Amino acid sequence: MNQMFNQLKSQTTAQVRAEIRACAYGGHTAGLGKNNLQANLAILPADYALDFMRFCQRNPKPCPLVGVSDTGNPMMQTLGRDFDIRTDIPAYYVYRDGVLAETVTDITNLWRDDFVAFALGCSFTFEHALEQAGIPVWHIENNTTVPMFASNIQTVPAGPFGGAMVVSMRAIADDRLDQVISISKRFPMAHGAPVHFGDPAAIGITDIAAPDWGDPAPVPTGTTPVFWACGVTPQVAITQAKPPICITHKPGHMLITDIADDAETTIIHP
Amino acid sequence: MNQMFNQLKSQTTAQVRAEIRACAYGGHTAGLGKNNLQANLAILPADYALDFMRFCQRNPKPCPLVGVSDTGNPMMQTLGRDFDIRTDIPAYYVYRDGVLAETVTDITNLWRDDFVAFALGCSFTFEHALEQAGIPVWHIENNTTVPMFASNIQTVPAGPFGGAMVVSMRAIADDRLDQVISISKRFPMAHGAPVHFGDPAAIGITDIAAPDWGDPAPVPTGTTPVFWACGVTPQVAITQAKPPICITHKPGHMLITDIADDAETTIIHP
Repeated sequence: MNQMFNQLKSQTTAQVRAEIRACAYGGHTAGLGKNNLQANLAILPADYALDFMRFCQRNPKPCPLVGVSDTGNPMMQTLGRDFDIRTDIPAYYVYRDGVLAETVTDITNLWRDDFVAFALGCSFTFEHALEQAGIPVWHIENNTTVPMFASNIQTVPAGPFGGAMVVSMRAIADDRLDQVISISKRFPMAHGAPVHFGDPAAIGITDIAAPDWGDPAPVPTGTTPVFWACGVTPQVAITQAKPPICITHKPGHMLITDIADDAETTIIHP
Repeated sequence: MNQMFNQLKSQTTAQVRAEIRACAYGGHTAGLGKNNLQANLAILPADYALDFMRFCQRNPKPCPLVGVSDTGNPMMQTLGRDFDIRTDIPAYYVYRDGVLAETVTDITNLWRDDFVAFALGCSFTFEHALEQAGIPVWHIENNTTVPMFASNIQTVPAGPFGGAMVVSMRAIADDRLDQVISISKRFPMAHGAPVHFGDPAAIGITDIAAPDWGDPAPVPTGTTPVFWACGVTPQVAITQAKPPICITHKPGHMLITDIADDAETTIIHP
């Protein structure tokens, strides 16, 4: 898998997507499809789609909507020229009644005529911008998953969707804090400015060394823990809403679009 | 009406909304509720809501979604503390089967349990920013309505919604063009950067002196006509989709929210 990953790093988004579609690669996508927007995925039956879309609209920092499929159409036409949502993600989580039921690499057999696919922006975009500005991102340099926590910040509910906002944490050198805030604010489709920095307890986090998802990361002296709204938030909302079926990406195994990282809008005219 | 308008200009958004709710004021809202975000309105039956919301997501420059009501709930809870969409807009257009049927100042008797209200950002926000930067906006200084044109730029369709993008035109001094583009780009919820500047024919406009909506405005020597995506676009999409009923604001008679003009997100936690 690691050798494959290193090969894919230098390939185009179309090439990477072809390998994923052929099930030749099932790993994480951090660092792949460089300069193209990556996104979180949630697929729901149409009965739930309007409420979920309202949930995203009301919570744009954790759930920035970058694309929505037509009902029953697996081609994400506004995000890519040849983008089949059933095969082009390296790994999927299948939730039944709000509970994670299985992990698969292809959902062709599960696809239904009433499914709607939602793509939500992710943090890779601003992390890439931080790296380009010479600001180190610890979990990338150490090849771990960013630490994520269930905060006590409540989302704005919509229908059955609601619950706590999930946040991701990056320790930032105190003297780069202002720069990091202003860089990330430029990417509203990638969670925008942080929702909090400083004392973790202020947003209900009791142990910064014990994330609810992902791997722990150090907060050395001279750095401040900075918290961004996180794309895992809708997965918590889904466990609360308990739809009969919902399919998401496996965390870190994202949807790679044809949209440029710095595009003004996230839409391709089909 | 003019005397009332001058009184309202110095009042708070809550006071302005109370006068509109009491039907004491039915005029345009340009210059009212200063520093608060204003928005276009579209109310549709729930059967059309998911497709319309997809239409807005796919066309974020003409249709930037700033708020969506719960189905059947006339209180726009994410846009204001006490905001009744049935009474708090100065004037409404009622479309039946895609045709403008009547203009009213209150829709309480028309409201239905299956209605969903959509608020879409408008150009007042960036015009205000241009004025603060010392850039004159001719139609404001001359108390006319901005000229609007049906362009040949096609929207990205969603279900029955589609059609041409409507654009608004402001003539900008050639030496301020870069500044105007960069200021307006900062307001993605108010149409963002222009979609075109220069030759009107390039986007299908044959006579710059004869707008399809609004009033003509001059393009003096030393200025460039600059075109922004316009919030009238969804009204064209609605005449194409022909829903049995649809209610919009009367152009210029906007919804005034409690959201700050420069807020990072357009959502109040109810």
